[in-house]
This record gives sequence, C-alpha cells and structure tokens, in this order.
Amino acid sequence: MTKTGTPALPGEPGQLAPAAARALFRAGLVSPTAGWSRGFAQANLIIVPKALAFDVLLFAQRNPKPCPILGVLDAGETSGPLLAGGDIRTDVPRYTVYENGTMVAEPVDISGYWREDLVTFIVGCSFTFEAALQDGGISIAHIDQGVNVPMYRSSIRCAPAGSISGPMVVSMRPVPASQVADAVRITSRYPAVHGAPVHVGNPAEIGIADLGRPDFGDPVSIPTGHLPVFWACGVTPQAAIMESRPALAIGHAPGHMLITDARDSRYLVP
Amino acid sequence: MTKTGTPALPGEPGQLAPAAARALFRAGLVSPTAGWSRGFAQANLIIVPKALAFDVLLFAQRNPKPCPILGVLDAGETSGPLLAGGDIRTDVPRYTVYENGTMVAEPVDISGYWREDLVTFIVGCSFTFEAALQDGGISIAHIDQGVNVPMYRSSIRCAPAGSISGPMVVSMRPVPASQVADAVRITSRYPAVHGAPVHVGNPAEIGIADLGRPDFGDPVSIPTGHLPVFWACGVTPQAAIMESRPALAIGHAPGHMLITDARDSRYLVP
Repeated sequence: MTKTGTPALPGEPGQLAPAAARALFRAGLVSPTAGWSRGFAQANLIIVPKALAFDVLLFAQRNPKPCPILGVLDAGETSGPLLAGGDIRTDVPRYTVYENGTMVAEPVDISGYWREDLVTFIVGCSFTFEAALQDGGISIAHIDQGVNVPMYRSSIRCAPAGSISGPMVVSMRPVPASQVADAVRITSRYPAVHGAPVHVGNPAEIGIADLGRPDFGDPVSIPTGHLPVFWACGVTPQAAIMESRPALAIGHAPGHMLITDARDSRYLVP
Repeated sequence: MTKTGTPALPGEPGQLAPAAARALFRAGLVSPTAGWSRGFAQANLIIVPKALAFDVLLFAQRNPKPCPILGVLDAGETSGPLLAGGDIRTDVPRYTVYENGTMVAEPVDISGYWREDLVTFIVGCSFTFEAALQDGGISIAHIDQGVNVPMYRSSIRCAPAGSISGPMVVSMRPVPASQVADAVRITSRYPAVHGAPVHVGNPAEIGIADLGRPDFGDPVSIPTGHLPVFWACGVTPQAAIMESRPALAIGHAPGHMLITDARDSRYLVP
C-alpha cells in the first residue's frame, strides 16, 4: 500500500472520526494532528524487530511516565483494536526511520520498510490531558501560539532495560503560578498519558540550559508570572533508540501522531 | 542457599520491616503473609525462562487489572530495588513450580530450580487495597474469619499474548450493599494493585457456580445484606501457566507473598 495524491480536508479536523482521519493520512494527506478528532486519544509510535521487543516493553514498564503503553501489535500485525480497519504502515501522517540510532528517513508511508518480525508499540500522548487542562481553565501556550509543543532531552535518566537506555524527554507548558496546583491535579488523573509533571519551575536542574532551544518541536514564549512545567514525553523511546543504536527502529514524526479509536475518557482515573 | 531450621517469630508480624520479614522466610519460616509488615506492598510472583518473558510481559500489559507489574528482575537477577538485600529464590515463604502446566512442587526455596535465564515478574497484590478498605470502614470478611481470601477461575477470558492465554482469576469479598460504592471508589484509586472491581453481585454471570467452593484460598460466609464483589487477582498468571503449559514456570503459593520494600501509598493515585 502506498500513498498517492493528496486528498482535500473535508471540513473541520476536530470533528473527524478517528477512522476518517486515518483514511485521509492513508490516502496521502500530511499534517500535524494537534486538534484533530477531538475527544479521541492520539498516540506515539515505536516499532522494533521482535528480537528487541522484550527490551522495549520492559523499558516502557520501568519508565511508565514517559512510555505509557496503550497497546501492542504482535509481530507482523498491521492493525488492531486501537485502529480498527486501519493500517499502521500508512495511517500515521509522517514517520521516522532509524538505522543504528541515526534517523535515515522521514517517510509518509513505511510499507517499504515493513517486515513480518516488526512489533508495534502504541504509546500514550499528552494531547489527551491537554484537553482536560483546557477544560480546567488552563490555557495551552503552544496551542494558542499555533506551534508544536517544545520538547527537551532532560538530564533525568530513564531506568535501562536490556540493550535500551536513554534520557527522559520532557515536554514543557508554561502555567500561571496560581494554576500550577490545578495542572498537577488534573494531569495526575491521566497516568496512561504521562500523568503528573516530573518537574516544576527550574529547567537548569533537569539539564535544560535554554528553554528557547527545544530539542524537538517549537519554542514558546513564557509570559511573566508563568512557571515552566515539565511532563514526561512520548518521544522518549525515540531518544533511547538514538542512544542505544539498534539496527532498525521506526517512530512517528513528533506532532504527527496515530489517531486512535480510544476515547480520552478511557484513560481518566479513578 | 537453602533454608535450615525454623526461626522463631520475633514479636508482632505486622510491625516487622520488610527486610526482617524476608530474612525470616529466608531462614526457614513458612507462613501466610496476610497482615505482615503493615503499610508495605506485598506481591505475587511469576518467574519464567527468558524465551517466554516477552509473552508474559505482554500478557500483563494487555491484562493490567489481574497482572499489574510492580517490577521485573532481569534474566538471572535474584534481587532488586523492591527487595533490597534480598534473594527472590528464598525470600518468599512458599513457592509453586509448574512443569508443562502442572504443579509439580510447592517448595519453600527455589535455589534448586534456579537458572540464569529465569526472569522474575513482581505483580501487585490486593493486600494493599484491603488496608485502604479497612481504613475506609469496610471490614474484610476473610481477615475477620482468619482465612485466606477466596479466589475463583472466572469465565472472563484474559486477552492472550503470544503463547500465553487463560481465564481471569478473581478474588471475592462480601461488601454490605450500603458500602459497595465506597469499595469501588476506594479500590479504583489503586490501579497498580488490581484497582476497581471487575464484577459486583452476580457470580453466575462470570462463571462461578458455587461461592462456597473457591478454586484457590478458603470459602467465607456471606452475611445477609452483603453483595459478593469480585476483583481481578494476581493468581491469574499462574492460571494462564496451567492452561498454556510452558516447560517451566515458578510462582508463589497463594497467600504466601513477596513482602516488598515499597510502601502501599506508592500505588495510590492520583
């Protein structure tokens, strides 16, 4: 299956059913997915050969804040309940391909890379709790500013697992001092999509020298009276791939997520 | 390392530090662990060869209510942060050994079975939320009656993973009708130790013909006005081992748990 042509966007992306959004990407549309299919969980992707799958799943188990697993497709499987009728090789708008830890391509379709031994991990994404933050009266700077969320390689080390190790990648959202407690309270109820923040207020302490120069995504301006609040980020597995250098791994391009059929509310606890 | 002699119990088991409790078991004491080391999380155990480890970890990921993973020891590792200074081969009071799905031994020490390719999964246990239920004013029948919790093979099927499949095992606690909502609310805040009930009130509907004849543990009497409430149970991996028949697997004897260094409160959300 390969993508041909570029379909037009039928109406407002926020109103699209997940299957309809995936069909558009499958047909060739390329777009960041922020704001798409509102109410449905979007997800990070990490795809590795079966020989590496235990290490990756154990890495996720040991680092549940950056790597909350929503689903796993068995070796060779290209669809599953989180993307009913879909195809993991084509339904994400843009992918990243790593060989020996180096990104070698950013294709819009990975059919040409597919192998029967590839295992797909579907990892929770903070887009789910961003909707809850907005519902709680907390504005999201990167949405308001129309850019991708800023993400940073922190100095926090993940717990290693077998051949996989790496730094925790964190996303940052500026929050008014008066709303920091609310932001913690609201996001802590979504452990399956990164949960509570990992750090509040002092970027230098987690190895971030310059908030204006994120490692992934775009910088956002921080209004006076706002604190930078850091959440564990689903790009962490890709940073671990870069450090651990397996022969092959495939991810999603940051901000270009898998739109799943799971409602955000499924991940709300208690 | 083998157990020799039977040490005397120094004082009240509920007051023992986890390391002291483990040392007693290591030295030869055999006892159910209910009520021991109050405030610290006890855990189920499932130990399998590395070749089966991905399937078991994926089974746990797909069935988080019965199989909440608290920690994983790498192949050949016999200790870890959940049992600092301990030895997984000796520190549980009694084990179960399965060959081709059949229990062949219930040793108090598995040193003789140990292999360098064995991977240990430490799985959350409902003892953690039982303390919270009691704090919430809900009495626990099997504790009051001085017996082990009754456990049943239900007709609920777990999501399979590779070579591993099986039924969900459930534990049952009678709860007064007026406190069922409280019991749900309280346990739902402990997703890492089985979380909210999977069923309330109708055992026949989940394949349990006779509450008086549990598959594991002991029957308890159900007072008038109480409903039987069912929670997913950490014996589920052992039921899956019995059905899936791998060459070798090792568990804990029901009620004879690993006492970990993790406080119960670590598993409280949000």
